[in-house]
Amino acid sequence: MSDSTDSNMKANFRIPSASGDAGSALRVLDCTIRDGGLMNSHRFEDEVVAAVHSACGAAGIDYMEIGYRASRKGIQSGEHGCWRYCLEEDIQRIVGGRAVGPKISIMADVGKCDYREDIGPKAGSVVDMVRVACYLHQIPTAIDMVKDIRDKGYEVSVNLMAVTTVSERELEEGLARLASSEADIIYVVDSFGALVSPRIRSLMALYLRHAQPAGKSVGIHAHNNLQLAFANTVEAMQAGATFLDATMAGLGRGAGNCPMELLVGFLDSSKYRLEPVLACVEEVVEPLRRELKWGFGLPYMITGLFNRHPRAAIEFLASPHRDGILPFYESESRP
Amino acid sequence: MSDSTDSNMKANFRIPSASGDAGSALRVLDCTIRDGGLMNSHRFEDEVVAAVHSACGAAGIDYMEIGYRASRKGIQSGEHGCWRYCLEEDIQRIVGGRAVGPKISIMADVGKCDYREDIGPKAGSVVDMVRVACYLHQIPTAIDMVKDIRDKGYEVSVNLMAVTTVSERELEEGLARLASSEADIIYVVDSFGALVSPRIRSLMALYLRHAQPAGKSVGIHAHNNLQLAFANTVEAMQAGATFLDATMAGLGRGAGNCPMELLVGFLDSSKYRLEPVLACVEEVVEPLRRELKWGFGLPYMITGLFNRHPRAAIEFLASPHRDGILPFYESESRP
Repeated sequence: MSDSTDSNMKANFRIPSASGDAGSALRVLDCTIRDGGLMNSHRFEDEVVAAVHSACGAAGIDYMEIGYRASRKGIQSGEHGCWRYCLEEDIQRIVGGRAVGPKISIMADVGKCDYREDIGPKAGSVVDMVRVACYLHQIPTAIDMVKDIRDKGYEVSVNLMAVTTVSERELEEGLARLASSEADIIYVVDSFGALVSPRIRSLMALYLRHAQPAGKSVGIHAHNNLQLAFANTVEAMQAGATFLDATMAGLGRGAGNCPMELLVGFLDSSKYRLEPVLACVEEVVEPLRRELKWGFGLPYMITGLFNRHPRAAIEFLASPHRDGILPFYESESRP
Repeated sequence: MSDSTDSNMKANFRIPSASGDAGSALRVLDCTIRDGGLMNSHRFEDEVVAAVHSACGAAGIDYMEIGYRASRKGIQSGEHGCWRYCLEEDIQRIVGGRAVGPKISIMADVGKCDYREDIGPKAGSVVDMVRVACYLHQIPTAIDMVKDIRDKGYEVSVNLMAVTTVSERELEEGLARLASSEADIIYVVDSFGALVSPRIRSLMALYLRHAQPAGKSVGIHAHNNLQLAFANTVEAMQAGATFLDATMAGLGRGAGNCPMELLVGFLDSSKYRLEPVLACVEEVVEPLRRELKWGFGLPYMITGLFNRHPRAAIEFLASPHRDGILPFYESESRP
């Protein structure tokens, strides 16, 4: 990267060491297939999953989150694609012997995963990390789940979702409990894409105040409803986040996530390489856009502005005979 | 806007008063037609220009920049649309009597406008502000031009383009000269969309250090190559910028500009109204996207990363038999 770039784009930026040396802290996590699966019921062709895995390896991306682990009880066969469950055989079909490549992560939602049964010992798994996703009121269960999964030998994070909907006091209490858990990482999760930079900084300070004394890292998972996913990711990194989520072409629910191509382009270093990401975005992920229809648009912007779940926007966009944007704005703006 | 929004998206944000009361400072400038004109040789139908003007008025947007003022010497008839020249009769056809609506701005590039001839006295014009666009080496001419235009009765800004390509020392010298000019406003212009937030903050501090003692305001004009146009605009506002440029649907050269719908959604107040912007974006501007093809994409991202003019990306995208993105990345990454 040229001097003129360094002297401008990254001027005044503190980028944690990502060189892989001792003391390096930064970890980039690709969750293209996991978050993108929310737009197609987790039905990705093996070729797509393998291409993302291969690109992550070539780009030096630290983790690839390949899908959810969830209970299949009461689920009809074919109701979801296999990346809703991430059976070991499905993952192994993609990652094979794994001589090289990213660590493998799966996500498990509190209440949707019988973790004692669904997650076996690390010794029999190609999975390296389990990310436990929960809402604030589920923290007690999440803590039990973290302990069980940690005891089985995995790295564990807690991804506390929809952080923009809870009060500061509730959040403090929740973080205090998570600080005493066995989680390795606690994530700031902007599920609704509603955060702007000063709030990113204050949340990061709050999370770090609880996480650092307990020896835990803090991560960031952003959504792009206000075209701030990349901005908020680098802002969080500046404020001390060391686990950074991103997805190829930003593929993810609704407005999507922080685009990996922007993040790796920005971090460009001896460790991360942009070219494999560019090729994956162009050849593998962008061709899915016509069908999966993720990305910034007025309906997702409006749910982000009003700090609401994107489901109303997803339904609005899927409706074949929808009204214009003004009635949608009107309905979302009601308290 | 609901409390939950205020408590999250705007938490910790200082939004300068935009109420129109004495002491208010914030001004939003729409440059949809002016910057968008770089994507269609300034050929907008009157209906489009009138719809943008009408939406700006209904939304409470302070200024609408309707195009360029430029010399027509040596130009063949039909070479550009009329918004390249903004004859008074063309502007008046759109804005009519102007009992209501935004102030009208035009842009004049140093070296492309015979300002002594092309810009008449304010008394005979519906134009309120002239924005003088120049590169660093053109500052001496820009200062002469500012004086001439100011003496004729207009508000005047200097838009110092491509700020990411000049050294700190050159910039200091340039700003010192502009501080002694008669310009009302000096703009931070990220022509290549290469700036990230810490650099926005340091540039704002530098511009304000020169502008404020001279009684001048500072503005921000951002491009979206790194999906940072909105983020950088609010960052600049936080740092003291009071003139904020944006365009409907982000329409503008290459990756486009800060989307007005995001900015007005964020500033939502008694002064600015989002609904007219939403309707304009949906009904008037988005339908132009298929033909004008502005907006974020890998080629523009790459020119932004390497701090280069977007023209190579525009040419690449216009080429019917183009190679993939990797050869483009390779060619742009060469020093």
